Amino acid sequence: MLNKNVVNFIGCDAEYDESSVVLFGVPFDSTTSFRPGARFGPSAARNESYGIETYSPYLDEELTDFKVFDSGDLELPIGDSRMVLDMIEEREKAILDSSKLPFMVGGEHLVTLGAIRAVAAKYPDVNIIHFDAHADLRQDYLGVELSHACVMRRASELLGKGRIYQFGIRSGDKSEFVRDDDDKKRIVTTRFGFEGLDNTVKELAGKPVYFSLDLDILDPSILPGTGTPEAGGVGFIVLLRAIETIFAGNAEIVGMDVCELAPNLDPSGVSTAVTCKLIREMLLGYLSKNK
Amino acid sequence: MLNKNVVNFIGCDAEYDESSVVLFGVPFDSTTSFRPGARFGPSAARNESYGIETYSPYLDEELTDFKVFDSGDLELPIGDSRMVLDMIEEREKAILDSSKLPFMVGGEHLVTLGAIRAVAAKYPDVNIIHFDAHADLRQDYLGVELSHACVMRRASELLGKGRIYQFGIRSGDKSEFVRDDDDKKRIVTTRFGFEGLDNTVKELAGKPVYFSLDLDILDPSILPGTGTPEAGGVGFIVLLRAIETIFAGNAEIVGMDVCELAPNLDPSGVSTAVTCKLIREMLLGYLSKNK
Amino acid sequence: MLNKNVVNFIGCDAEYDESSVVLFGVPFDSTTSFRPGARFGPSAARNESYGIETYSPYLDEELTDFKVFDSGDLELPIGDSRMVLDMIEEREKAILDSSKLPFMVGGEHLVTLGAIRAVAAKYPDVNIIHFDAHADLRQDYLGVELSHACVMRRASELLGKGRIYQFGIRSGDKSEFVRDDDDKKRIVTTRFGFEGLDNTVKELAGKPVYFSLDLDILDPSILPGTGTPEAGGVGFIVLLRAIETIFAGNAEIVGMDVCELAPNLDPSGVSTAVTCKLIREMLLGYLSKNK
Amino acid sequence: MLNKNVVNFIGCDAEYDESSVVLFGVPFDSTTSFRPGARFGPSAARNESYGIETYSPYLDEELTDFKVFDSGDLELPIGDSRMVLDMIEEREKAILDSSKLPFMVGGEHLVTLGAIRAVAAKYPDVNIIHFDAHADLRQDYLGVELSHACVMRRASELLGKGRIYQFGIRSGDKSEFVRDDDDKKRIVTTRFGFEGLDNTVKELAGKPVYFSLDLDILDPSILPGTGTPEAGGVGFIVLLRAIETIFAGNAEIVGMDVCELAPNLDPSGVSTAVTCKLIREMLLGYLSKNK
Amino acid sequence: MLNKNVVNFIGCDAEYDESSVVLFGVPFDSTTSFRPGARFGPSAARNESYGIETYSPYLDEELTDFKVFDSGDLELPIGDSRMVLDMIEEREKAILDSSKLPFMVGGEHLVTLGAIRAVAAKYPDVNIIHFDAHADLRQDYLGVELSHACVMRRASELLGKGRIYQFGIRSGDKSEFVRDDDDKKRIVTTRFGFEGLDNTVKELAGKPVYFSLDLDILDPSILPGTGTPEAGGVGFIVLLRAIETIFAGNAEIVGMDVCELAPNLDPSGVSTAVTCKLIREMLLGYLSKNK
Amino acid sequence: MLNKNVVNFIGCDAEYDESSVVLFGVPFDSTTSFRPGARFGPSAARNESYGIETYSPYLDEELTDFKVFDSGDLELPIGDSRMVLDMIEEREKAILDSSKLPFMVGGEHLVTLGAIRAVAAKYPDVNIIHFDAHADLRQDYLGVELSHACVMRRASELLGKGRIYQFGIRSGDKSEFVRDDDDKKRIVTTRFGFEGLDNTVKELAGKPVYFSLDLDILDPSILPGTGTPEAGGVGFIVLLRAIETIFAGNAEIVGMDVCELAPNLDPSGVSTAVTCKLIREMLLGYLSKNK
Repeated sequence: MLNKNVVNFIGCDAEYDESSVVLFGVPFDSTTSFRPGARFGPSAARNESYGIETYSPYLDEELTDFKVFDSGDLELPIGDSRMVLDMIEEREKAILDSSKLPFMVGGEHLVTLGAIRAVAAKYPDVNIIHFDAHADLRQDYLGVELSHACVMRRASELLGKGRIYQFGIRSGDKSEFVRDDDDKKRIVTTRFGFEGLDNTVKELAGKPVYFSLDLDILDPSILPGTGTPEAGGVGFIVLLRAIETIFAGNAEIVGMDVCELAPNLDPSGVSTAVTCKLIREMLLGYLSKNK
Repeated sequence: MLNKNVVNFIGCDAEYDESSVVLFGVPFDSTTSFRPGARFGPSAARNESYGIETYSPYLDEELTDFKVFDSGDLELPIGDSRMVLDMIEEREKAILDSSKLPFMVGGEHLVTLGAIRAVAAKYPDVNIIHFDAHADLRQDYLGVELSHACVMRRASELLGKGRIYQFGIRSGDKSEFVRDDDDKKRIVTTRFGFEGLDNTVKELAGKPVYFSLDLDILDPSILPGTGTPEAGGVGFIVLLRAIETIFAGNAEIVGMDVCELAPNLDPSGVSTAVTCKLIREMLLGYLSKNK
Repeated sequence: MLNKNVVNFIGCDAEYDESSVVLFGVPFDSTTSFRPGARFGPSAARNESYGIETYSPYLDEELTDFKVFDSGDLELPIGDSRMVLDMIEEREKAILDSSKLPFMVGGEHLVTLGAIRAVAAKYPDVNIIHFDAHADLRQDYLGVELSHACVMRRASELLGKGRIYQFGIRSGDKSEFVRDDDDKKRIVTTRFGFEGLDNTVKELAGKPVYFSLDLDILDPSILPGTGTPEAGGVGFIVLLRAIETIFAGNAEIVGMDVCELAPNLDPSGVSTAVTCKLIREMLLGYLSKNK
Repeated sequence: MLNKNVVNFIGCDAEYDESSVVLFGVPFDSTTSFRPGARFGPSAARNESYGIETYSPYLDEELTDFKVFDSGDLELPIGDSRMVLDMIEEREKAILDSSKLPFMVGGEHLVTLGAIRAVAAKYPDVNIIHFDAHADLRQDYLGVELSHACVMRRASELLGKGRIYQFGIRSGDKSEFVRDDDDKKRIVTTRFGFEGLDNTVKELAGKPVYFSLDLDILDPSILPGTGTPEAGGVGFIVLLRAIETIFAGNAEIVGMDVCELAPNLDPSGVSTAVTCKLIREMLLGYLSKNK
Repeated sequence: MLNKNVVNFIGCDAEYDESSVVLFGVPFDSTTSFRPGARFGPSAARNESYGIETYSPYLDEELTDFKVFDSGDLELPIGDSRMVLDMIEEREKAILDSSKLPFMVGGEHLVTLGAIRAVAAKYPDVNIIHFDAHADLRQDYLGVELSHACVMRRASELLGKGRIYQFGIRSGDKSEFVRDDDDKKRIVTTRFGFEGLDNTVKELAGKPVYFSLDLDILDPSILPGTGTPEAGGVGFIVLLRAIETIFAGNAEIVGMDVCELAPNLDPSGVSTAVTCKLIREMLLGYLSKNK
Repeated sequence: MLNKNVVNFIGCDAEYDESSVVLFGVPFDSTTSFRPGARFGPSAARNESYGIETYSPYLDEELTDFKVFDSGDLELPIGDSRMVLDMIEEREKAILDSSKLPFMVGGEHLVTLGAIRAVAAKYPDVNIIHFDAHADLRQDYLGVELSHACVMRRASELLGKGRIYQFGIRSGDKSEFVRDDDDKKRIVTTRFGFEGLDNTVKELAGKPVYFSLDLDILDPSILPGTGTPEAGGVGFIVLLRAIETIFAGNAEIVGMDVCELAPNLDPSGVSTAVTCKLIREMLLGYLSKNK
């Protein structure tokens, strides 16, 4: 008897019960303001992951030595952000309820709000480490509050002061950069790179942390396939080192995501290959720390 | 003193007051279920229109002999379909209030609902002639009622029985094809081509008609750049003849639209060039009839 | 508990035991002489099938009313045609042994040889109906006998005289067209279109038939995404009618395949969408005849 | 000792002296008004010709049974149309002086003017059969008289009245269609298709004729890779029949060209494949008539 | 009453009289020797500028705090370089006559010659700071003197000795690198990077300077969309710092340009996004210095 | 009399007898496991080489000052790796027999095995300097031993211990990284970059060395057009310096190759342009050392 066609991210073929990490994809981009296509991110990452290896020469760790479950993509009611966020929250909650780490692959960055809601329900004192080119701190975008350009503003409303730490930020409107002192304490923004990341990680030792990676933090030379590419980004190895910094610390990672891969915008496929390698490194960073 | 950079659809550079037709673009695709990109349709059509001529050898008419105003694209709150539909309705109403013909260039097909609302407010007995590959008659799409897959269902709820005439339909779920007699009278659906169009046009003589053209009625060999291409469509000349049939009749055209060009999905640019020529023929068809 | 990510061709989500048709993909293109990429055909068809509907307005049949199993793609030893053909033969045989219809999605056309071997083992008197732009009748291609350019020559060696019926052939070297009478009886070749297909189907009534569809029989305007596009092909509706002719007859279809989709060669995605619709129609043609 | 890398159009590897036809490419597109890229036409046709066969099932003729020489592309002073036209004229003249048929592969359509000059010097009573979507009859294009949009106007100035026969014309400004009777006799224009071509060919029996094929006469569904695609064109088989009509007659073909392939505008490569097949058919049409 | 569709580079929507900087585009590429497409540069930059922000986190300046006028693209007689250069000179002169800064967006690099002519007429002692991968110092290119490969040779003939300072040069024929001492004083060439730029800027304090930026100075990893990409270029941040060095000095900038974006050669769109950000930084660099 | 169309890599137009280096292309990719297309590498490099200059500002050397012969591409029996390797070996041997340097342009990396066989026959003590992202040390790939993923394992079997020096390796399965000491002496692998290269070159002074460059050693930001792009690669200038290190030493280079350019995977064309420049620098590095 032949088997059904199960498609996982490479090396993530464990059973649910035995797994400590659960992947899920959110093919959503309805609020993307400039160039849509992030909806194709999760399936592209899964399908193209077979072009990378399960072994990391950076960490000297092998993904098949661990147990990860890939639960596929949510089937979304495209066009209704509220319903979509509810579904994300529900999936994130289900994984948290099983005491596993939810690892969401977006989709545009608004999807992070759904995950944060579930995480904050379980860990009310959760912090966010946010890697991104954009601050995503607008109050609204042409009247829309549930927009990828506002996601960290919405998250900060949920979490309260001093809980969001942004790195790599290099684009936004003036209001997102020139903020009053109160707001700067509410959300701590580091421009251009990762200065101070090691200190942040130390401060967060023992605390629950959600790690959100917007791929456009990378320079568009290496990741052109994203909705709003911003010149002047960080390099791949620099990002890898920053990710290692997070897992090398003692913060308790309780959820993570990778967002804003729009694979079709990069016909060379490199953006997807880069994303796959980052997902592998994030998985191995977490798993080797928590084994 | 230098001039500002005014960008019109080719030949549509008249002043507002002297014009009998007003173009506007709606760069919206948030409910697109399969492949987004229709948001880029109106600007692509405008920019690439300079590749076609203003003279039609089919109609022997010259666009610059008429007065058309191009009011550009709406600036939309991406991600909120309700707000978007309100803005479309408002723009359509403003043009109708000036006793001009509104000619909307989408965007995905949901935008037609906004236009229909304004038209139905002025002409409660308006009929719709709808050219499309898809029936767009679902009650909802994964729970979303304001979806491009439901737009003619929503329109029929607004207009009542016997007011929508569809042609070219060749794709849908079973419920959109196998309908009860009552619903078939509510919405008259012709499969695959334009059989009976001339009769429909005769029946609608003297009545207000809104003409909605979903470009995916065309065979994807000639218009691949659309969100949901469907093999087995009509040819360009066949469509041209059907458009001529509409304008040759005595129905009172009170609004029209062209939807679902997703230009980036066709890197050859042919889909956009085809759309530009159809817009020219629709403009000249209307204008030469109403001069 | 969450589910594994099972990915089927749309509507083909039945259990193995209850299914009468079994799909499998063969991502192989190592002997492609001109432009590779057919290896990506089966996964593209499966992934993009969600852009079509399960209902056919041509046949008025609904795919979800039947039971089809999709067993995914073979994992192939790229670079060794002999091993690949053995694996195909084994999979085809397994499905035949379960008394189900094997439906293979290629891959380049050489893969048909593997399937034919299994079919001929069970049905020694099997005939082949072969739709293609190319005769595929060379003795060898630069010395290589296991080549997609030779597949029907190899099949005829296996089956003997008068068992292969080709339609749509419009390209080849002179030796493939100007053949002696004996060889013309061995393999019956119809140029350009489907003339005589209905007679062939009648003659084959009650006999076992394998149906092989090389997608490049279609005009490249509608299916540009194939390794060797040949201008002057048949249209989509014409092909649909020819497929219906096959299933309308009384031949016993014992295996079928669709080959030579190279999806990346058509960035518009239309070639894949067309292929998906043809797979649906072939499935429904067979299933509605054999229910 | 190894050989130099000689690259011919497929099947055109004869020595100069033994050949009756000489190919040359003109990689020029400096006056292209809309989308450049025709400069890449000749090398693309040569390189991709290995995807077609040398045998024509339409004519039952084999290209390798004849002798054709491919002299490669001119090396052009890009940016100076006068110098370019002089170089074309010189090459065309050299081939004519050897009593061989020059077959030029453009490049944009202006290149035809250079060839016509040489042909008219040898055959002052030469006629032109011109297949095109565009009349190319403007007096100037924004002040430029040596433009692809004016090439047949320039040719008619050179040749005088009643010497140019255009077919397939479907786009131009009003002045190119609505012309006085004198000009209509000067240049005989047939709209949309090939009506009257057989009569024209009969009238030209025994007379010298230059045949110029602008590929955009084809429908852009089958040849999207051209600078100014125009919907509503002729199909491939229809064009093939028209080409056969020319060679079936008794006009004395003294030069020919194929222009306006812009291969990079069609990433599927089909436009180039179509062009290669047309070049083969034109070669075989001429050669089998003149053997 | 609805407004006309005015399309500006983002943030450049002031009235002419109140503006201190005037943008104009020159969609020209007729002398491009390798890959055309720079003609699409100015409109792409304008249309895609809505993907960047008006605020610069590098300079902490906001573009909407200043007044810039965008006068759109010149309508060019494609194919006649002399006429094109005259039109550029005229536009540049008109802006200079209004005592505003002309900021030209090319187009291929030959366009700079037209601007230099107007600038040199007003400022006979003008100097050029030239950032480029190519020296552009050939006497002619296959006999053509008005070529993008010769533009700085032509400029040096106009301006005389010691007035052109080139940086980043990494490609050319031997004669462009191995020059006699006199010519090296005539044109000062710095290879590969910006060594000595700060000294040059100091020397030019108080003097009129035209700044010409050929985008191919950037590494093609970050700007692949250009006619002649040259590996080994400078990074985005390095270029940004060099631009800041120019504006930080006391040279009197009297004109500037950005050339050689060929947007269609980079389907990811990153090249255009990078160009938009550079235009913003050049605008803000100039405006914040001259407010 | 006109000349035949000889197409060389730029500057490589010498006669065979006078040349010290002979180029040949191997358009093969049948064992490519992930994304095919390397077959198009050699012709793309040759055709696009006209976009670079023959002068190197890095070495201050001019290619036309030397004699190089380009013998074009092998015509390969696609689909049969054994026959292909034999043909490569034969070509390599023919060039070695003429006491010239063979310079092979791939093609996927398996082609190196054919060249190594010929080189090892003439120089049994030959060493390999191998630049690559991948170790290529697998015993087999899904049962296939003649695979690009195994090429250095095969070469080491041929050459014996301590003869292969790999640099830049950053991807592979665990077995390729975690090897026993014996195997590490057999093949000396340096991760990520070129640490120790200068020492290796010193050790190899006076010894025969084959230099194999797999282009995927470069970061995919600068060379996306390759079958298996691996983030985290070396930069162009870093690679250039490493190549200079090899030629600056006193090893006797007896053969070299450049592999794994898959030009169609990078529609910007930059990957091919980068490859052309590397070929020029390798040619000039060798020629200027051996003049």
